[in-house]
Amino acid sequence: MSKSKAPRRPRAEAPKGFRDYFGTEVTARNEMLAKIAAVYHRYGFDPLETSAVETVEALGKFLPDVDRPNAGVFAWQEDEGESKAGDWMALRYDLTAPLARVAAQYRNDLPSPYRRYAMGPVWRNEKPGPGRFRQFYQCDADTVGSGNVAADAEICAMLSDVFEELGLGGDYIVRINNRKVLNGVMEAAGVLDPADPSKFEEERGIVLRAIDKLDRLGESGVRALLGEGRKDESGDYTKGAGLPASAADTVLAFTGARRDSGAETCAVLRELVGGSVIGAEGVAELEEMARLLEAQGYGADRIVIDPSVVRGLGYYTGPVYEAELTFEILDEKGRKRQFGSVAGGGRYDDLVKRFTGQAVPATGVSIGVDRLLAALAAKGQGAKPALGPVVVTVMDRARMTEYQAMVGELRRAGIRAEVYLGNPKNFGNQLKYADKRGSPVAIIQGSNEAEAGVVQVKDLVLGAKIAESASLEEWKSRPAQVEVKREDLVATVQAMLDDPA
Amino acid sequence: MSKSKAPRRPRAEAPKGFRDYFGTEVTARNEMLAKIAAVYHRYGFDPLETSAVETVEALGKFLPDVDRPNAGVFAWQEDEGESKAGDWMALRYDLTAPLARVAAQYRNDLPSPYRRYAMGPVWRNEKPGPGRFRQFYQCDADTVGSGNVAADAEICAMLSDVFEELGLGGDYIVRINNRKVLNGVMEAAGVLDPADPSKFEEERGIVLRAIDKLDRLGESGVRALLGEGRKDESGDYTKGAGLPASAADTVLAFTGARRDSGAETCAVLRELVGGSVIGAEGVAELEEMARLLEAQGYGADRIVIDPSVVRGLGYYTGPVYEAELTFEILDEKGRKRQFGSVAGGGRYDDLVKRFTGQAVPATGVSIGVDRLLAALAAKGQGAKPALGPVVVTVMDRARMTEYQAMVGELRRAGIRAEVYLGNPKNFGNQLKYADKRGSPVAIIQGSNEAEAGVVQVKDLVLGAKIAESASLEEWKSRPAQVEVKREDLVATVQAMLDDPA
Repeated sequence: MSKSKAPRRPRAEAPKGFRDYFGTEVTARNEMLAKIAAVYHRYGFDPLETSAVETVEALGKFLPDVDRPNAGVFAWQEDEGESKAGDWMALRYDLTAPLARVAAQYRNDLPSPYRRYAMGPVWRNEKPGPGRFRQFYQCDADTVGSGNVAADAEICAMLSDVFEELGLGGDYIVRINNRKVLNGVMEAAGVLDPADPSKFEEERGIVLRAIDKLDRLGESGVRALLGEGRKDESGDYTKGAGLPASAADTVLAFTGARRDSGAETCAVLRELVGGSVIGAEGVAELEEMARLLEAQGYGADRIVIDPSVVRGLGYYTGPVYEAELTFEILDEKGRKRQFGSVAGGGRYDDLVKRFTGQAVPATGVSIGVDRLLAALAAKGQGAKPALGPVVVTVMDRARMTEYQAMVGELRRAGIRAEVYLGNPKNFGNQLKYADKRGSPVAIIQGSNEAEAGVVQVKDLVLGAKIAESASLEEWKSRPAQVEVKREDLVATVQAMLDDPA
Repeated sequence: MSKSKAPRRPRAEAPKGFRDYFGTEVTARNEMLAKIAAVYHRYGFDPLETSAVETVEALGKFLPDVDRPNAGVFAWQEDEGESKAGDWMALRYDLTAPLARVAAQYRNDLPSPYRRYAMGPVWRNEKPGPGRFRQFYQCDADTVGSGNVAADAEICAMLSDVFEELGLGGDYIVRINNRKVLNGVMEAAGVLDPADPSKFEEERGIVLRAIDKLDRLGESGVRALLGEGRKDESGDYTKGAGLPASAADTVLAFTGARRDSGAETCAVLRELVGGSVIGAEGVAELEEMARLLEAQGYGADRIVIDPSVVRGLGYYTGPVYEAELTFEILDEKGRKRQFGSVAGGGRYDDLVKRFTGQAVPATGVSIGVDRLLAALAAKGQGAKPALGPVVVTVMDRARMTEYQAMVGELRRAGIRAEVYLGNPKNFGNQLKYADKRGSPVAIIQGSNEAEAGVVQVKDLVLGAKIAESASLEEWKSRPAQVEVKREDLVATVQAMLDDPA
């Protein structure tokens, strides 16, 4: 192909991995976030909104030993003029890193403990895929400055309240685990030496990754990874942790320790951690959380101690929690499966330390906003599409002033309304437009009607129904179009809206 | 100073020109935007949320003849691997450019006309200054696909309704001008030749810039710029448009054409544009807008035709509008001045043309969210700070379960409440914390109270008042701390909150 001399037109496309939200997609999210914010507020959490941009330094996303940021973030270098290299800046990839920066920057001004919530987009410079976007919303709540597990229990209770508030009562479970218990189990299994925590680091990494694959590989696969190693179907070999069978039993007993009641589960765990001090501490934390939650009336049908929660165990330092929606949906292959995880969190201790050198305990949760929205839609609990506007059609361009007066009256009565502002020549196009907008009512006034001081009010909802299925009786008892006096316009429209067909 | 070997700690600072929003700063903005969205909705506008990131190509921000984006945007190049240079991406610098892309990308699916509103942050890579940030909120409404000035009139009416909704009735004015009228005046002044629009381009640029300086330079300064040129106080010379005195009179008569009524103003303008076809068209548009707005009851006290509106005249192609808040504030030097402009917009025709080659008329407005928020605060119409949580203090760490039960009861009653989760050792710190949070009530229960089945409920609002000023009588009639039965806790707190001191 020869190059064209005409300037190339830009492509009208959202960048790869980014998307646009229209109408109800925007309002549904806003409504859901407002409900969540109301729960967070009731729990004493305050909103915080940081900007999208942070220094890469503050985000802690420099690649090790390389003078450029992690490829996982969108980053650029400040332009400081010819002679000077500017700071690297990046879009935040989560809401925790900015919280860490804020907690350090304002440490003398913020209340302590500081309960804050944050809602907003985050950005990941990753390969986009179906349903995987490079900008998405998170909705976090964290308590900074409290080492008390009451703070963890509170976040779990708050999560539960969020689901109840969203109409998902009975369809969710918040599951709690504790990293310290796993550490105790590691100790009992011989891959953690409290006297030398740096020993067996590699083995512990393998154990963590192995139990994280329990869902996918099943018990026998994980047992292989805990032992000598595992060859997968392709023939690839994954090195194992080298645990003897009895130690592997201990680790698997941990992930399977859930019993009918929290007390029973904790009894099993206490047994498993044996003489480990850190393990006993973890079990005590779980027991304390169970007690606190029970005192507030959160039964095991809503919040449960479940050592099979493994996501995040490698990152968090104490309690870990995860919220799952338990109702079933059909997957892309038409098979039933549980909706699954929509939120997760836990306790982490080095939030502020990077900045100040001072350890500050913190715990918090992050809700996956898009997944939760999808869940609400699947359960029919999502926002209803907004009603389209009443459309005042234009029969006679010269009478635009009168049409504007009509629409002004309707709006002042709180009714969503507009005059058709496209080319009015083809009246059919005006009704097609009203249809596309989901308009409930159209107003028609030609010069004959104007002279007679009347307007036609067309019930588009009823009209659509009649066109589809109504009987003659229905048609007669409630015609889809009525002629009313001009001064009765607003009342007539209001009545149609109040009593939809 | 010698370099330290310890790894340097990252600075805990928001990047230069970016800021954090805490508590009420977040909720006040959200509340204001929700009110504006309700008005936009009533006018039939639908929400649209595009992502923060666009291709630089779509934004149209490549520097002319240079293979890199405009310095005014934050931009980076997609990482496509070693061998391939990726697309340039950038943060949006306004909400209009993404609308243009969306209007082109979805042109076959969107209703036409397409009324959309958008609210969100935009980013400018500019030197930050006091009160000038590199991320700030905009709130736009645009109608794409209607060339009818009824669409412009509608946006002006909607702006007026927004201010009324926000409690600024009587404190604002929406002013309307028209670029076509200015073109007619240019024609009359001899710097626009309808037969050859490219002629006198430089002169027209000078005229535009000159009238834009009317506020700052006054009539004589502008007259100099319209004529031979002007030497400023520093001795710098600015070249003039070279207009003869009579032509300069015509231009200045244009900016000063506002009369008591829209009809009178239009009569003056019609005189000024003389035989110019485009000028007459502009005057007719202003007359039509005045008629439409009057029919809806918007008097000249709310929306007025005012040719002294010059902002945007160089950019827009037809009607131009600007909203000003007319109440007075004190500037940084303590002098009274009008609050000034908070929104502006107008008609522009090449929105979609860049992408599709097809001209699509559009008109819209952008509200400066931060300025409007500041105005609301100045008028006492801003959001009230959220009430702090009721704080259940911790007198006895072993009784945490009971404290959590109390807070659970309060929250279930819809009362914002929390248990103190810091180190409870120093009780004074707990009350200091409650003070910092703006807590209205504190709950106290030590082991003595627990045994007696009672709690202490401390009215912190009243307590603060008494500490300041109350008489002995007030103190006696309403003690700041009451002891009530444990089961009366919620009712007692509720009563205190309902009847604040």
